[in-house]
Amino acid sequence: MLTVNAYGATSATDPLVPLTIERRDVGPRDVMIAIRYSGICHSDIHTVREEWGKITFPQVVGHEIVGEVIETGAEVTKHAVGDRVGVGCMVNSCRECDECLAGDEHMCANGNVGTYNSTDVDGTTTQGGYATHVVVDQDFVLAVPEAIPYDRAAPLLCAGITTYSPLARWGAGPGRKVAVVGLGGLGHMAVKIAVAMGAEVTTISRTDAKKADALSFGAARHVATNEDGALRALTRTFDLIINTISAPYDVNAYLRTLRPHGALVNVGLPPEPLALRVGSLIGGGKSFAGSNIGSIRETQAMLEFCAEHGIAPETELITADQINEAYDRTVAGDVRYRFVIDAATLA
Amino acid sequence: MLTVNAYGATSATDPLVPLTIERRDVGPRDVMIAIRYSGICHSDIHTVREEWGKITFPQVVGHEIVGEVIETGAEVTKHAVGDRVGVGCMVNSCRECDECLAGDEHMCANGNVGTYNSTDVDGTTTQGGYATHVVVDQDFVLAVPEAIPYDRAAPLLCAGITTYSPLARWGAGPGRKVAVVGLGGLGHMAVKIAVAMGAEVTTISRTDAKKADALSFGAARHVATNEDGALRALTRTFDLIINTISAPYDVNAYLRTLRPHGALVNVGLPPEPLALRVGSLIGGGKSFAGSNIGSIRETQAMLEFCAEHGIAPETELITADQINEAYDRTVAGDVRYRFVIDAATLA
Repeated sequence: MLTVNAYGATSATDPLVPLTIERRDVGPRDVMIAIRYSGICHSDIHTVREEWGKITFPQVVGHEIVGEVIETGAEVTKHAVGDRVGVGCMVNSCRECDECLAGDEHMCANGNVGTYNSTDVDGTTTQGGYATHVVVDQDFVLAVPEAIPYDRAAPLLCAGITTYSPLARWGAGPGRKVAVVGLGGLGHMAVKIAVAMGAEVTTISRTDAKKADALSFGAARHVATNEDGALRALTRTFDLIINTISAPYDVNAYLRTLRPHGALVNVGLPPEPLALRVGSLIGGGKSFAGSNIGSIRETQAMLEFCAEHGIAPETELITADQINEAYDRTVAGDVRYRFVIDAATLA
Repeated sequence: MLTVNAYGATSATDPLVPLTIERRDVGPRDVMIAIRYSGICHSDIHTVREEWGKITFPQVVGHEIVGEVIETGAEVTKHAVGDRVGVGCMVNSCRECDECLAGDEHMCANGNVGTYNSTDVDGTTTQGGYATHVVVDQDFVLAVPEAIPYDRAAPLLCAGITTYSPLARWGAGPGRKVAVVGLGGLGHMAVKIAVAMGAEVTTISRTDAKKADALSFGAARHVATNEDGALRALTRTFDLIINTISAPYDVNAYLRTLRPHGALVNVGLPPEPLALRVGSLIGGGKSFAGSNIGSIRETQAMLEFCAEHGIAPETELITADQINEAYDRTVAGDVRYRFVIDAATLA
């Protein structure tokens, strides 16, 4: 066991504080990673504030992790000491179900093991990336290409794969018109990736506040929905819409902006059911779909795609003692576009 | 103009009666068809009873038509006198929009011209297939293979294509588990087609009343939802579900029966919005989609598929004076599985 410095929650209501946690000994197939940077995802906040249900305290969250391999188990073949690596939202799965065998471990029939607040196969509760070190099975460790700036790579492990996966699956590419709804951590990555895939991208958000940013990321245009009739004017426009907003919305109004055969894919999770008119889907043979992160294989492909196309998240680097402030700013939408913790400040 | 015998509605509430209608002269690209058989689709009933909105009376419905070509215009190349042909739900489209140019005339941006109760490009109101003759542009006339029994071919033009299209698009085939919800005119065709495509088919309906039929159509099993926990026991089972029911239902409960990446496709149109939880889609990367008939090209492919695989609808042949009774029985679900009018009884 290794005791490591971390920053975590001791209750759902108190600020996060410096603390120490135990990491398991490096097993034969494990790698130990000296964490360099750790992104802050809104999911981290929902989790520690128990907005998604009761959790065990103390809890260290964080599932956008990059760092350096400093130790490997005897059977490790995929990574070597000194490698730049990453860990995303999951650290294990059953490896026996149809999905795991098909390489869809993120859809494991027995539930994949989340990077924090999950029970690992050895019965321990996982703790996440706001820490100096983490020990992870080699199969759930990604190689992070050198072409991606070290301090900006972390958000790719969640925000990057969450948007890359549906864009790839639903065919963003040349000749395709893609809309990205919401311009936060996920949305801004969706724009960059879709543009790199060759699609013509429209960004849609409530106001024009982020219009200049959207265009700088490569969007062809920005539409503000607070203007009367803005959505209606987009009728029959898009082949694919990626909705990154986790709030209730008029799904039928967005389905109307799809061309025939088009798909609206939610990566945001509204808390309440949506009132979906089936007629919004039938006439044009449209789809309303969901998507959740991606497989390890796909995450690796995403990292290589980003390296090849020179894509990285927009980040604001913070010290550990700024985490609580960053949480408040994330909840307020006051971040362009992802906070990244410099793990050196945890040491 | 040709005056032809037909059977139609004179009001939303009176029974259908024998009447005559005018068919246009055969234009250069038209064919005149001597109708032999005409199917009764539930849409016909919704239309004449004005359950889908006001219509013009008198109205002759029917969009499952087979017959023989008896006259062709000077420029007709696709069909010849004596050919066995069919007409489905549409008889024209704008031919200029992206969808028409891509061969998706059923999704015409300007609205395709329905076989009845639509305004054709010449400004006239179309009248459907409960008649002795119809004149249709050659591009919207299908060749009906001889291998399909004449008196059973008609329902393929609506029920056949409506189910074939989503089964083909969403990949029913060997190794895939497909559920068909509802065993009416559409559902029984969905079973036969999915089985012929090589899928393992489960039929789902409220009771076991049609179980024996379902198995005789090739279903591997039948599930009755009036048994406690029946749906729950199907959790994570299907790759594809075709829902043929036009009634409200618990869409989340059916989405739960899909495997990851699975799709639930509605061809039935419930009148009210469904309460869809986005979480039902996200975890497994699932899709909820709609589908509406198919293109002319796809309809022709469906007819050839059915001929090749020896598939035909189950039908009950009726005379014209049984149409009103057939309507009542269709509404009551008392039909196995499609009424077909013998057009000789209209003469």
